[in-house]
Amino acid sequence: MNTSAADLKRIIHLLSEIYSSLEPEEVLFQSLKGIVSLIGCEAGSIWELSEEEGKLFFRAIVGRGAENLKGKSLHLGEGIAGSVAASGKPRVIDDVRKSSEWNPDFDRASSFHTENLLTFPLKSRGKVIGVIQLLNKEGGFRSEDIELIENLAGPVAMALENARLYLFQKRLFKETALALATAIDKRDPYTGGHTKRVLEYSGKIGEILDIEGNELEKLELSAILHDVGKIGIPDEILRKKGSLTEEERRLIEKHPEIGAEIVEGIPGTESIVEGIKYHHERCDGSGYPDGLTCEEIPIFARIIAVADVYDALTSERPYRKALSPQEALDYLKEREGQKFWEEAVRALLSLFPVGK
Amino acid sequence: MNTSAADLKRIIHLLSEIYSSLEPEEVLFQSLKGIVSLIGCEAGSIWELSEEEGKLFFRAIVGRGAENLKGKSLHLGEGIAGSVAASGKPRVIDDVRKSSEWNPDFDRASSFHTENLLTFPLKSRGKVIGVIQLLNKEGGFRSEDIELIENLAGPVAMALENARLYLFQKRLFKETALALATAIDKRDPYTGGHTKRVLEYSGKIGEILDIEGNELEKLELSAILHDVGKIGIPDEILRKKGSLTEEERRLIEKHPEIGAEIVEGIPGTESIVEGIKYHHERCDGSGYPDGLTCEEIPIFARIIAVADVYDALTSERPYRKALSPQEALDYLKEREGQKFWEEAVRALLSLFPVGK
Repeated sequence: MNTSAADLKRIIHLLSEIYSSLEPEEVLFQSLKGIVSLIGCEAGSIWELSEEEGKLFFRAIVGRGAENLKGKSLHLGEGIAGSVAASGKPRVIDDVRKSSEWNPDFDRASSFHTENLLTFPLKSRGKVIGVIQLLNKEGGFRSEDIELIENLAGPVAMALENARLYLFQKRLFKETALALATAIDKRDPYTGGHTKRVLEYSGKIGEILDIEGNELEKLELSAILHDVGKIGIPDEILRKKGSLTEEERRLIEKHPEIGAEIVEGIPGTESIVEGIKYHHERCDGSGYPDGLTCEEIPIFARIIAVADVYDALTSERPYRKALSPQEALDYLKEREGQKFWEEAVRALLSLFPVGK
Repeated sequence: MNTSAADLKRIIHLLSEIYSSLEPEEVLFQSLKGIVSLIGCEAGSIWELSEEEGKLFFRAIVGRGAENLKGKSLHLGEGIAGSVAASGKPRVIDDVRKSSEWNPDFDRASSFHTENLLTFPLKSRGKVIGVIQLLNKEGGFRSEDIELIENLAGPVAMALENARLYLFQKRLFKETALALATAIDKRDPYTGGHTKRVLEYSGKIGEILDIEGNELEKLELSAILHDVGKIGIPDEILRKKGSLTEEERRLIEKHPEIGAEIVEGIPGTESIVEGIKYHHERCDGSGYPDGLTCEEIPIFARIIAVADVYDALTSERPYRKALSPQEALDYLKEREGQKFWEEAVRALLSLFPVGK
């Protein structure tokens, strides 16, 4: 096989596409799209092996009817993809109608008509981590296609491993931060589960407002950490059952600043710190610590404020009962624009059918 | 240009090498090594641009005399590498003796004799992030070498960006965990800076004991989190000035278990949790919570125990003065094997000249 400069460029371009992301879904989709185009076949899929479950899951699909196949799975050893995952050996089938192993269910689900296929294992450190399946090459798959996939399967598997590692690291971080923030939260006897719920509401509001990727992760981290400054408030004030003195109230109102100081100075956390520091600011300037107005309040803080107040209102306090979701949403709606950022309130409303 | 199947395989192999790691140093070294071998030249270097400093730093070197060049830097615009970084355009020089820009200092430092060179910018999203410089190809660098580097510079830059992102994520995690643990630590008025020092000692002991990479990161995280369980101890006990009652002491001794419970259940944290839970165990079975003996105590816990006790002894307490480093090391030496794991004590001793 001889490869022209143009082909080489395409292969290098494909490999760059494969490695251009650290998001597993994106890695698999880009890999598959590039390989299908390079080989010149009609469709393809990548299946990822879950060792614990002994199953292959559809992870990326290129071609007609792809939508209907999402979420499908196969047992190890089942069908052609399952047998390749089990044996670790590639297979070419020139006419699926003549193969007893071919399962026509997938074609039926996707209204696709499979004629021939090439299925190749994806291996990392000698272990199968998935398979790539290519469908319908005119005239059938040839030895040079196998040779090409042989060269590309390694990089695809490695890119997937890198992406998994990155994802693992991010999850570990998020979950550890949540565990620590929840532990800090627990000192306040009135706020069980508050951190987790504020994280959830803030994340959903952020998604509705088209915050995504890295920015969404930062918003979530800011929500996780919004109350960590309470670590600086003594037990006797945090747990006081009666009403607070003016001085005690002022001390409690220091928690956004204390929280910001804890995280401040870590490179890359600027917007996270803002969300923590300003989540008690209000649009009309009546909040603390700085009495900012709506446009001055950083966007993470505006979102967390709405999530925070909604959760506080719908949770029981020693001095009042919990409001119903409807009552809490009404409360926020009445004050949108005045106390709370309209867009965040609207986004929250859209999450709850009662509030619409 | 036509590329044979063998060449193609080498290029794909090189790209796989480039992307096989998420450690920036490793990415650069593997890239450079592969490119030098593929182009068939004598030596090469990669310089990374620090935008804040407006300087290029030597990051990877392949070839004779490489050792002497580590840590060198160039201003943007300075010399040939500096001019390529500034212009973003590649340069080929067929005879450096005829070039007024060539700085012979680097040759002198490395005892290398540069004849010709090819310098190429590394770009990510259109911005120069560094340069790759190749030295001494017999007969000089040709247009096909430039074409090849043109194809490979993108993947190298992208792999470096991925690795930087991963490194950034890990640093963010470590520093945020340290910030939160330090904030928790601060509730105990007697332990200022304790967490950070235990992290430092544990990390150094770990390195001496050949713990590396991912495992070292986990040890460090375990050291950062070893006392987070103190969040569950009420202020009045943590801050009590007089001696503790039996019940109060039992409560304080719950902190390793409380800390373990906080982190438990997060996938990938098993060894981290062990380090937290068992850092008050002692080799002779006299520790808590489970009275384990040396072999039963997980290795992270054995290391953190030594770091923890050394720091406690050398810090002032209301009921006693701080011991000197020598006195604290003597204390540990006298109890090695009996209370503390010998190897960790020896590693700690080797860190302090006084203790040898």
